[in-house]
Amino acid sequence: MEMPSPDPKVLSRKAELIERLEQVLPKASVIHDPSETRAYECDGLTAYKCPPLAVVLPSSTEEVSATLRICHDMNVPVVPRGSGTSLAGGALPTEDSVILGVAKLNDVLETDYDNRFIRVQTGRTNLSVTGAVEEDGFFYAPDPSSQLACAIAGNIAMNSGGAHCLKYGVTTNNLMGVKMVQMDGTIMDIGGAHLDAEGYDLLGLICGSEGQLGVVTEATLRILHKPEGARPVLMGFDSAEVAGQCVSDIIKAGVLPVAIEYMDRPCIRATEDFAGAGYPDCEALLIVEVEGSDAEIDEQLETIMKIARGHNPVDLRESSSPEESAKIWLGRKSAFGAMGKINDYMCLDGTIPISQLPYVLKRIGEMSKEFGLDVANVFHAGDGNMHPLILFDANKPGDLETCEEFGAEILKLCVEVDGCLTGEHGVGIEKRDLMLHQYDPADLEIQMAIKDVFDPKWLLNPAKVFPLASSDARRIAAE
Amino acid sequence: MEMPSPDPKVLSRKAELIERLEQVLPKASVIHDPSETRAYECDGLTAYKCPPLAVVLPSSTEEVSATLRICHDMNVPVVPRGSGTSLAGGALPTEDSVILGVAKLNDVLETDYDNRFIRVQTGRTNLSVTGAVEEDGFFYAPDPSSQLACAIAGNIAMNSGGAHCLKYGVTTNNLMGVKMVQMDGTIMDIGGAHLDAEGYDLLGLICGSEGQLGVVTEATLRILHKPEGARPVLMGFDSAEVAGQCVSDIIKAGVLPVAIEYMDRPCIRATEDFAGAGYPDCEALLIVEVEGSDAEIDEQLETIMKIARGHNPVDLRESSSPEESAKIWLGRKSAFGAMGKINDYMCLDGTIPISQLPYVLKRIGEMSKEFGLDVANVFHAGDGNMHPLILFDANKPGDLETCEEFGAEILKLCVEVDGCLTGEHGVGIEKRDLMLHQYDPADLEIQMAIKDVFDPKWLLNPAKVFPLASSDARRIAAE
Repeated sequence: MEMPSPDPKVLSRKAELIERLEQVLPKASVIHDPSETRAYECDGLTAYKCPPLAVVLPSSTEEVSATLRICHDMNVPVVPRGSGTSLAGGALPTEDSVILGVAKLNDVLETDYDNRFIRVQTGRTNLSVTGAVEEDGFFYAPDPSSQLACAIAGNIAMNSGGAHCLKYGVTTNNLMGVKMVQMDGTIMDIGGAHLDAEGYDLLGLICGSEGQLGVVTEATLRILHKPEGARPVLMGFDSAEVAGQCVSDIIKAGVLPVAIEYMDRPCIRATEDFAGAGYPDCEALLIVEVEGSDAEIDEQLETIMKIARGHNPVDLRESSSPEESAKIWLGRKSAFGAMGKINDYMCLDGTIPISQLPYVLKRIGEMSKEFGLDVANVFHAGDGNMHPLILFDANKPGDLETCEEFGAEILKLCVEVDGCLTGEHGVGIEKRDLMLHQYDPADLEIQMAIKDVFDPKWLLNPAKVFPLASSDARRIAAE
Repeated sequence: MEMPSPDPKVLSRKAELIERLEQVLPKASVIHDPSETRAYECDGLTAYKCPPLAVVLPSSTEEVSATLRICHDMNVPVVPRGSGTSLAGGALPTEDSVILGVAKLNDVLETDYDNRFIRVQTGRTNLSVTGAVEEDGFFYAPDPSSQLACAIAGNIAMNSGGAHCLKYGVTTNNLMGVKMVQMDGTIMDIGGAHLDAEGYDLLGLICGSEGQLGVVTEATLRILHKPEGARPVLMGFDSAEVAGQCVSDIIKAGVLPVAIEYMDRPCIRATEDFAGAGYPDCEALLIVEVEGSDAEIDEQLETIMKIARGHNPVDLRESSSPEESAKIWLGRKSAFGAMGKINDYMCLDGTIPISQLPYVLKRIGEMSKEFGLDVANVFHAGDGNMHPLILFDANKPGDLETCEEFGAEILKLCVEVDGCLTGEHGVGIEKRDLMLHQYDPADLEIQMAIKDVFDPKWLLNPAKVFPLASSDARRIAAE
C-alpha cells in the first residue's frame, strides 16, 4: 500500500510544535520520544505501520480544542484515535502527523432514564457505556466484536455495528447528539436529547465520517431497556447456499431476530480447536438469537425452527439454559482470536443485499482457489454485512500483496451485486483506492467538497477515505 | 412574514425561459398562464401565497435534469414540490421562481421482497407505496397524517414521521437510497439496497434537507412485514400533567407501543362534534396502540393497562374488535379536519425530551392566556413530537400576527428545554428566522457552506430554512 509523503516543513518544525503543545497541555500528555510514539504506529490493521511525529492525550474538550488550534495554525496533520482497534487503518498515522488520542476522555457526564439517554466522553469504551447503566436495567445496543476495547469515538467515526444491530440498528441509529471540535479549534454541539433537528442533518453526516470532519469529544447515546430474556439457536447446514437461503427465509417470514451470525467450515474448525464450543463439523453454521419475554421467545423460535427444519439441517439446537446459550456464543465470540492464532488474516467488511448471500459465498469459494489463499467466513448474515477473513502468511514474500488483491476483488464483487465496500469498519486506508469502483468522480467531488467545508486545509485524518492522489491534490491546493 | 424581493432580471426573461423549457418538455408540462399558475401559489401553510413565474411538471428524471439545467443556466430559482401539503411553507414559491412538481413521477419501478425494498418515483403518494405491496403482506412504515395526499418527495425533503414512527422510525430510518438531480442537472445515485455506504453519509444529509440540495426523483424504501395484528387502548385523564406522566412511565417500562397519541380537551371537543367517536370529555386523552401476535399484544397491554390504572384514569377502554379499534382512531384521524372546520389554525411542530411534556403543556396553557388565543394539542407523545394548534380568526386584523408571535414563543420554549424547532414539518419559511435561537452563527455557516457545495448559486428552494437575510446575502454573493 502506497504511503503519503511526509511534509518536510512539518518535520523540521517538530521542536516548535512540541513546545507550543506543552504550553497548553500538561507535559505528560504530550508524547514525542520515538521509543514511546512507536506504541501508536498502527491500529488493528497491523500490516501497515508508521510512527507519528507526536502523540497528544488531552483530558478535556478545551484541551482538544487548544491542540487542534495549534496544529491548524502550524499546518500539522492530526490523526484522531479512539482505542486503535480499526481494521481498516482508520487510525494509522503519517510521519508528519500528530495522533490525538481520546483515551483520557472516559467519563460518564449524565444519565437520564426518563429520556432514555446517556452522555459520555468519547474515549469511554463501548462495553463500559452499558456497564454504567446495566444495574438499572438498561443497555447501549451497538456491540462491535471489539466492544471490550473499542471507544465510542471510533464507533461514531466508523458508524459501527455488531451482532445485535439487525434489531437495534447501528451507531447512527443510536446516536442523538455530539460535541465536536473542528480542525480550527471551534467547539460545536450537534443534535441532542431530542428526536430530530432542524436544518441539515449534520449528526448523520458526522457519524461515519471517519474522523475527517472534526474530533467528537462527547456523545449523547440512546439507551434501551434490557429485554427480559434472550435465547439462541444453533443450526448446521451442509452447504453455504442452503444456509444463505435459510437466512433469507427467516428475514422474509417477518420475524426479527436480534442476531443472525454465520460461520463457515474453516472458521468452525479453527474456533473448535481454540474454544471447544462443541460446534458441529459442517459447511455452514448459523446462530440465530431472539429476545423478549418467554412467550415472545417461544413464538418467534417456533417460526424460526420450522424454517430451519425445512432446510434439512445437519444440526439444530435450541438453547435450554444460560450455560448452553453461553456455549453457543462462545465459538462465535472467539472466532477472530482463533483465526489469529493459526494464521495471519485480513478481515474484509463488504455489505450486500441479503438475497445475494448464496451467490457471493459461492464466488468467494471459487476466487479462493484462483488466488490460492484460504478464506474463512464469519459475519452478521441478517443484515448482509460480510466479514470474509483471507488467510495468509506474513512471512512469505508476496502473500500480503496477493491477499490485498484478492480482498479488492471480493469488495468489487460486493459492489457488482448492488452492495458496497464497507458495512462498519470504514474505508480507512484499506479501501480508499476502491472508492472509484463505487463512486464516479463527480460523486467523490461532492464528498470532498464537504470535507472542504469542515477542514479546508485537509489536515484531519489525512490519507484516508479518498483515493490518495485526490487527498494529496486537495491538501496541496489548500496550501 | 417578510417575503424575498423578486429578481427583476429573471422576471424580464420569462418569455425566453418558457421558450427554452418548451424545447425540452411537452408544452402541456410547462404552465405559465397566471390563471393556471395560481393553483400553485401556496402549500398547506395557506396564510402565505405567492404565484410562481411558471410551473413545470416533468415525466422523467431526464426531464427534471433538462429543466434544472435551463434554470441553472438562466439563474432562475426553482421550488421543488411534492403534493404541496407542507405545513411550514416548504413549497411556497417566490415571484421569480419556477415550481418543479413531481406529480407525474408516480410509478413503482421495482419491488424486491427478498431484500425487503420497493423503488418508486417520488411523486407517488405515501399511502400508495403501501398500496403497492400490501396484498403481499408488506407495508411502508412512516405514516404522516397527510399520507393519502403527501408525496414521497416531500416526505424525504422533510424527514416526515407519523403516528407509528415511535416503533418504526421516521423517513430517514426507512430510506435506503435515492436518485437525485443537482441544480446544474447532474444526476447522481446515493445509497441503495444495502445497509450502509462508504464515505460520508450523503443519504442522511439529503433526507430532511427540504429540497435545497437537489431534486430527488427516485427512492429505494425499506418495506416491512405487516404485523399479525394491532390493538389500541383509549385512556382519559383529568390533567395534562398526569397524561404526560403516564406517557413517560410507559416509555420507561420498556414496552414499545407503535403509537402513543395525545389530544387535549379543546381538541377532543372539536373532534367529537365533527366525527362523534365517543371520546370522554376530559382534560387529556391518550391512544396507545401495540402490535404483534395476540399473545404479544396481550402481554404488552397487561403492562400498559397496569400503568394507566396507576394514574387514576377517568376512562380506560381496550378495543375488543376491529370496529372498536376503528372508532378509537376515528377521532384522532379527523382531528385536523375538525379543527379546520371551527377555526383558522396554525399547526406547530416542536420536539422536546419526553420528560418535559408535563411542564411544556402547562406553560403552553399559561401562554395561551397571555396571548389571548386558544390552543388545541394533538400530537405524537411517545417521541416528544408536539403539534400545538393555535386557533385564530383570519378575518380579524392582527390575529395572524399575534398567532405567529405566540407560535414563535412556543418553539423557543421547546429549544429552552433542550428540544428543537421541528420534528417532521421542516423549517420552511415558517421557522427560518427562529433558526438563530437554536444555532449560533458559526453552526449556521457550516450548514450554508454545505448548501454551497450542492447549489453554489443558491437557486434551489429559495428563501427557506435559513434566516432570510442570510439566504439573500448568499445568493447575491454567488452572482
